[in-house]
Amino acid sequence: MPGATSPGEDNLFDLREFRLPDGRELLLYGRAPHVGEARESLPPAPASGGAHLRWHPLRREWVAYAGARQGRTFLPSAASCPLCPAAEGRLGEIPFERFEIAVFENRFPAFSGGALPVGLPGVETAPAQGRCEVVVFSDDHHAGLGTLCEDRLALLLEVWGARVKVLGETYPYVFPFENRGEEIGVTLHHPHGQIYAFPFVPAHARRAAEAQAEAPVIERLLRDAGNLVIEETEAAVALVPPFAVYPYEIWIAPRRRVPGPQALDDAERQAMAGLLGRAIRRLDGLFGTPMPYILTVQCAPKGFEATFHMTIDIRPFRRDAGKLKYLAGVEQGTGVFLADVLPEDAAVRLRAVPLENAP
Amino acid sequence: MPGATSPGEDNLFDLREFRLPDGRELLLYGRAPHVGEARESLPPAPASGGAHLRWHPLRREWVAYAGARQGRTFLPSAASCPLCPAAEGRLGEIPFERFEIAVFENRFPAFSGGALPVGLPGVETAPAQGRCEVVVFSDDHHAGLGTLCEDRLALLLEVWGARVKVLGETYPYVFPFENRGEEIGVTLHHPHGQIYAFPFVPAHARRAAEAQAEAPVIERLLRDAGNLVIEETEAAVALVPPFAVYPYEIWIAPRRRVPGPQALDDAERQAMAGLLGRAIRRLDGLFGTPMPYILTVQCAPKGFEATFHMTIDIRPFRRDAGKLKYLAGVEQGTGVFLADVLPEDAAVRLRAVPLENAP
Repeated sequence: MPGATSPGEDNLFDLREFRLPDGRELLLYGRAPHVGEARESLPPAPASGGAHLRWHPLRREWVAYAGARQGRTFLPSAASCPLCPAAEGRLGEIPFERFEIAVFENRFPAFSGGALPVGLPGVETAPAQGRCEVVVFSDDHHAGLGTLCEDRLALLLEVWGARVKVLGETYPYVFPFENRGEEIGVTLHHPHGQIYAFPFVPAHARRAAEAQAEAPVIERLLRDAGNLVIEETEAAVALVPPFAVYPYEIWIAPRRRVPGPQALDDAERQAMAGLLGRAIRRLDGLFGTPMPYILTVQCAPKGFEATFHMTIDIRPFRRDAGKLKYLAGVEQGTGVFLADVLPEDAAVRLRAVPLENAP
Repeated sequence: MPGATSPGEDNLFDLREFRLPDGRELLLYGRAPHVGEARESLPPAPASGGAHLRWHPLRREWVAYAGARQGRTFLPSAASCPLCPAAEGRLGEIPFERFEIAVFENRFPAFSGGALPVGLPGVETAPAQGRCEVVVFSDDHHAGLGTLCEDRLALLLEVWGARVKVLGETYPYVFPFENRGEEIGVTLHHPHGQIYAFPFVPAHARRAAEAQAEAPVIERLLRDAGNLVIEETEAAVALVPPFAVYPYEIWIAPRRRVPGPQALDDAERQAMAGLLGRAIRRLDGLFGTPMPYILTVQCAPKGFEATFHMTIDIRPFRRDAGKLKYLAGVEQGTGVFLADVLPEDAAVRLRAVPLENAP
């Protein structure tokens, strides 16, 4: 497997680029060299053709169809985890003994080329020419954002930034995120996130970006946060937004308006890394059990770089010990969120979580 | 408990109106008289103050806060079900021995009056002056839309219509729906739905209504449905929309453009009742286990009555035997739905479900 090393310009990490046997790209990011290449790798990914977009005329949004994803890996045992180091004698996506952060093209992408469907009169369709990447946070199957060291989280912010920068040259909207927990359908437990590079700007992202172009929403939020702040430094803030849609929702924002992680400076990255790790530990400690959550990195869509203020948004799925927050009829049918927990109460409780107690 | 009977004008049902001891309204709808009043009833509902709306400046939508809802009834045993007939010797919401369909004000409403919060600089707030009703479909704890007879489902359509008509005089958007299944957070298993009368038109509903005002989206859908039709009659159609966001999603529409169930004629109501019951039985039969789903009745928001074409939309939560469909990072973070199952394949499978096999 040929590899090329390029020291990241202005970066503190090395980037090593490889091609998997089926042609997918694999990128290793780290502060130390990666060693121990595997002799065997996973068989080539199945053909992922048939992915395409269909226009929903009432939602006024594209819907992404990818039939091949029904066969994706579902809750494998730790012994056959495809994200663990493959050189330890198992087949896997990452054919090395040790690595820090790995990025590769998703084996079961929601976006991929393919012929458009025929025989659908009156339905507007389009190619799903995007890109779906997997970001593996660690070679340790049992790690997580709450247990990784601050330097690794800072590296993750660098990796997000690097990918947003590269993918943003081709795609109008790049969306890094992490789903964590079986409760929200996560099928692989190895600590990882994903990056979707969209072939269009989703209406949701456009709406948020337009709002920020009209008014400095995040700057005002930081200015007025007061008792909603969970923790803050000179460079960044973790808070519960006063209009949170989820119980114990946390946003992490740099104080300076930057359009995405690619524009953070070292101090901001380090501050956000610390706030991020401790935010997850607070959520894990809140009910004494790992918190299922969705983490999204909100970056500027193309054309909105000058006015967009990036945030990392964490939506926790537990509203109480043993009780999950669901999106049911009202949320899904009308888009209006019903919240049980007042943001100002959530901030009090999150501040009070003893960090050493996180499971 | 004083009651007043008013034979519904133009309707085939009787309506009997009562006040519960705490002042909430209870309405019984049926084709036969209701008998057997209970001597005892539930203690008054807890004060539900503090509900209010906060404007989300990036979603550009209200978020509804109702802290008192955290204490709502959570998975009671069948023996203490608050929706079963209370006159059978238990405490409950409906103090009669037998009833057909009951509607009452929710004990734990998401919308209710109350003082606005203070100390939230920069946050736009508003009173949550809406109304939340519970609609109990049957006095049989173990019934469901898939097992109730067609006449009961036709009565349910009449009840939805009657409530949409009455509530629509005060509120700009009325939203009947059913959440079914623990998998989506349903806390009471007795067959029931809800009606939310909103103090504003949610952006989602406005978008769909504006789209229909610009083009006859649903009429075109019915015209072009072809192999997406599951079942049809002269008056109504059940189909999988070609832009479905959920696997095995089903829409039921009258052929005639009407703004809501209040405007259906007898033939349409009877046809839709039959299609609805069989749609649920198909979903239950698909994987041989009761299907968790969200059912929403899409009615015209105020001002869009002339161009809106009502539908009943069913979003099933199982994408395969033992696998649920979750709304995770992409759906929640961008609003874009990822679909594994092609609508045209879903229609084939739904048509093929033997209806007598439904569990």
